[in-house]
Amino acid sequence: MKVLALDTSTMWGIIGISDDGVPLAEIGIKSYSPYSKILMEGIDFLLRQVGLKIDDIEGVGVGIGPGSFTGLRVGISTIIGIAYAKGLLVAPIPSLEAIAMNLTPTNNLICPIIDAKKKEIFSGLFRYKNEEKLYRIEEERSWKPSELAEKIKDKVLFTGSGITKYGQFFKETLNEKAAFVSKRFWFPRGSILAIMAERMIQLGEGVKPHLIKPIYGRASDAELSLNGNKE
Amino acid sequence: MKVLALDTSTMWGIIGISDDGVPLAEIGIKSYSPYSKILMEGIDFLLRQVGLKIDDIEGVGVGIGPGSFTGLRVGISTIIGIAYAKGLLVAPIPSLEAIAMNLTPTNNLICPIIDAKKKEIFSGLFRYKNEEKLYRIEEERSWKPSELAEKIKDKVLFTGSGITKYGQFFKETLNEKAAFVSKRFWFPRGSILAIMAERMIQLGEGVKPHLIKPIYGRASDAELSLNGNKE
Repeated sequence: MKVLALDTSTMWGIIGISDDGVPLAEIGIKSYSPYSKILMEGIDFLLRQVGLKIDDIEGVGVGIGPGSFTGLRVGISTIIGIAYAKGLLVAPIPSLEAIAMNLTPTNNLICPIIDAKKKEIFSGLFRYKNEEKLYRIEEERSWKPSELAEKIKDKVLFTGSGITKYGQFFKETLNEKAAFVSKRFWFPRGSILAIMAERMIQLGEGVKPHLIKPIYGRASDAELSLNGNKE
Repeated sequence: MKVLALDTSTMWGIIGISDDGVPLAEIGIKSYSPYSKILMEGIDFLLRQVGLKIDDIEGVGVGIGPGSFTGLRVGISTIIGIAYAKGLLVAPIPSLEAIAMNLTPTNNLICPIIDAKKKEIFSGLFRYKNEEKLYRIEEERSWKPSELAEKIKDKVLFTGSGITKYGQFFKETLNEKAAFVSKRFWFPRGSILAIMAERMIQLGEGVKPHLIKPIYGRASDAELSLNGNKE
């Protein structure tokens, strides 16, 4: 089954294509220009290189966050557009789980962290069930670092670009419980995302495009301000 | 330091750009059309997306095999051309080590395997020294699977696309000593290759372009036939 997937929840945007669990093509780009420009050019480039047309794609997937408002909306809108036009199901992929899936199976907890600004991190806690599947210990959302640290009772492997800013805090707070993977594992991989999407669709977890909802991880400034005014 | 690296030793071609150990951009493509076409278009695409020009690149790296004759030659020639034109040093990266670097640090041996045809595999044995560095236990070259199996006395984690054809053999031969990672880890990653190249250049392991030599892993058919005729 040929699957196209993308994730634009962070500053590292990815596109991937897989076929029956095998990587066909992938792109990863630290985004300087807006994703709206990169995405279509990137999808077109990848399809062309592997000799496929958009009509050959049988399912799609998208990283649903948590992550930045604009980035998420651009990625999700693009995939929804393709899925709607082609009548395809969409796999809603937790973006932090895609980062965690870069790490080879381990008995430790896995904790991807991304800087969410405002002294918070986008994070969640996972553990490998088997080679192919992580299960969720703590929900993916924005956390105060200290609040997340209190949930961690076991050895944990941190990954993700949030280590730059928050690694020191977790090292001091969790001591020998905390380990950190090096930078080359911090960013999700297009081909892994596509393989995750394929598996979700096969498990019946694909949904119609209009049902895809981003996890923003917290309320927007506009919402916070609106609620503040109500109170 | 901005580094561009590529590897065309197998059917999964990669291009990556990193800057001070952080991924900037990557492409991975299962090659159907010749690499000579993909490479320049891919390099140009990646540089454009991250707002760099070829003049901004301060070092280059290339996977030197072992691998297919034609694939290796195209990739190495391209990088040598760029390095010569820009006066840059080239990091010669062992291609199988780039595959092994996909796996997060483990105490086990790591054994990447690629089908080398003629009932042989391109392989080598590695062990992590630390997060950033693998050390070589057995040389990267073409092996008869049984000859390699005899060298393995310890728990070993296999990776690489050769598992499809030879996984069963190693499982039966090595029993509980052998473990296998799933397909999403089998193919090298552009950004990891670039980070490896950067580190080599910083360690003084970069060389002038004319000194880059591919590891073909075994003699070519032409050479074998020539030697055969001599005997």
